[in-house]
Amino acid sequence: MNDIYSFSPVAFVRSPYPQKFAIPRQPGLNSAVCRIEFLPDYPEACFRGLEDFGMIWVQFVFHGTADEGWQPTVRPPRLGGREKKGVFATRSPHRPNPLGLSLLALEGIEYGRRVALLCRGADLLDGTPVLDVKPYLPFVEARPEAAAGFAAAAPPLLQVVWQTPCPPDLPAPLLRLIEESIAQDPRPAYQNRPERVYAASIGGWNIRFRIVGQQAEILSVQQAA
Amino acid sequence: MNDIYSFSPVAFVRSPYPQKFAIPRQPGLNSAVCRIEFLPDYPEACFRGLEDFGMIWVQFVFHGTADEGWQPTVRPPRLGGREKKGVFATRSPHRPNPLGLSLLALEGIEYGRRVALLCRGADLLDGTPVLDVKPYLPFVEARPEAAAGFAAAAPPLLQVVWQTPCPPDLPAPLLRLIEESIAQDPRPAYQNRPERVYAASIGGWNIRFRIVGQQAEILSVQQAA
Repeated sequence: MNDIYSFSPVAFVRSPYPQKFAIPRQPGLNSAVCRIEFLPDYPEACFRGLEDFGMIWVQFVFHGTADEGWQPTVRPPRLGGREKKGVFATRSPHRPNPLGLSLLALEGIEYGRRVALLCRGADLLDGTPVLDVKPYLPFVEARPEAAAGFAAAAPPLLQVVWQTPCPPDLPAPLLRLIEESIAQDPRPAYQNRPERVYAASIGGWNIRFRIVGQQAEILSVQQAA
Repeated sequence: MNDIYSFSPVAFVRSPYPQKFAIPRQPGLNSAVCRIEFLPDYPEACFRGLEDFGMIWVQFVFHGTADEGWQPTVRPPRLGGREKKGVFATRSPHRPNPLGLSLLALEGIEYGRRVALLCRGADLLDGTPVLDVKPYLPFVEARPEAAAGFAAAAPPLLQVVWQTPCPPDLPAPLLRLIEESIAQDPRPAYQNRPERVYAASIGGWNIRFRIVGQQAEILSVQQAA
């Protein structure tokens, strides 16, 4: 029973998130656009008909945290760090097999020697190794009535306020993505110190912010060097 | 870019399907009950809170067909074998990485030295190695409006008729499962010969049937030796 199964990535993700911090905890909660860039081993024929599907499953490796191991229980951020849930009852990246699963909106396909899928709603780290892509089948997989315990609804959002002028050269889609990412309260579950200043990098810009109550204050936004 | 990721199964499936033939092509289309039996490495704490979820994702290995390789295009049975689609535009088990993804209804959890999940709607081969189990999150993953091309609706069912008396000792749930499995037209896409007799084994019973037009005729049902 000690079988080992080995897989090579078929593609890698290019996303605006160079670090795990501030990535939304579920896909589809933001407007981030990512590219899933396939290796040249997968010719255009492999994607024939995929353009008819509005959403795709991405099965990937949590490569950024794979070396950190796992514990039988985790403290979901949704529960404020106050409660432990079994690892198989959460979508934590720290799992016995660090396999991720994200549902993304398929916005376009770039054909060429290397095919790329353009997706929206990405919760994926830049450089994520992708093991498989499959079409989403709503007649099987859309089950709005399914019970989901503590994760039944989208988490509440923070109100984002700017304590610094918004840089005039910040592109509008990136402004939106920064606000969306921070509104989702990226703090680790166990941190609730209003004086603490957090730093994140999104789409090549460095952001500093703090969170006081239900409000996120953006303190500075600067283009990365 | 030639990274290899290796995974060991966390669990194995016990299902009524000892062979690939006659397994429904998607989960949730039948009443089959399966057990996902975890290895003793995963204590009860790993499952805390999972009972609050109605459905789970099972990420597994298509172990029965993994050695058969893959082709850039496949002929989906739904299209009668007349059309080729790219492998990434289908849910075919013959994929570059033979990873499967099934959404199952979680009906119960058996605790003990080896935890087992009792699931309904299984489209899984007996003995399937499971790499991960995750809760289904309807607020993210129920997207009934998603476009799905040729796979937008459930496939039409065959009418099942018995050309042999139904054995009096066949348990009723198994009778139902046999009819459901055969109604889904398990024939390979390229076979459409009405005289051909097919054999399947489901839940320890051997079934012979043939398919004429939109009708499946059950010719014999016998308990396996």
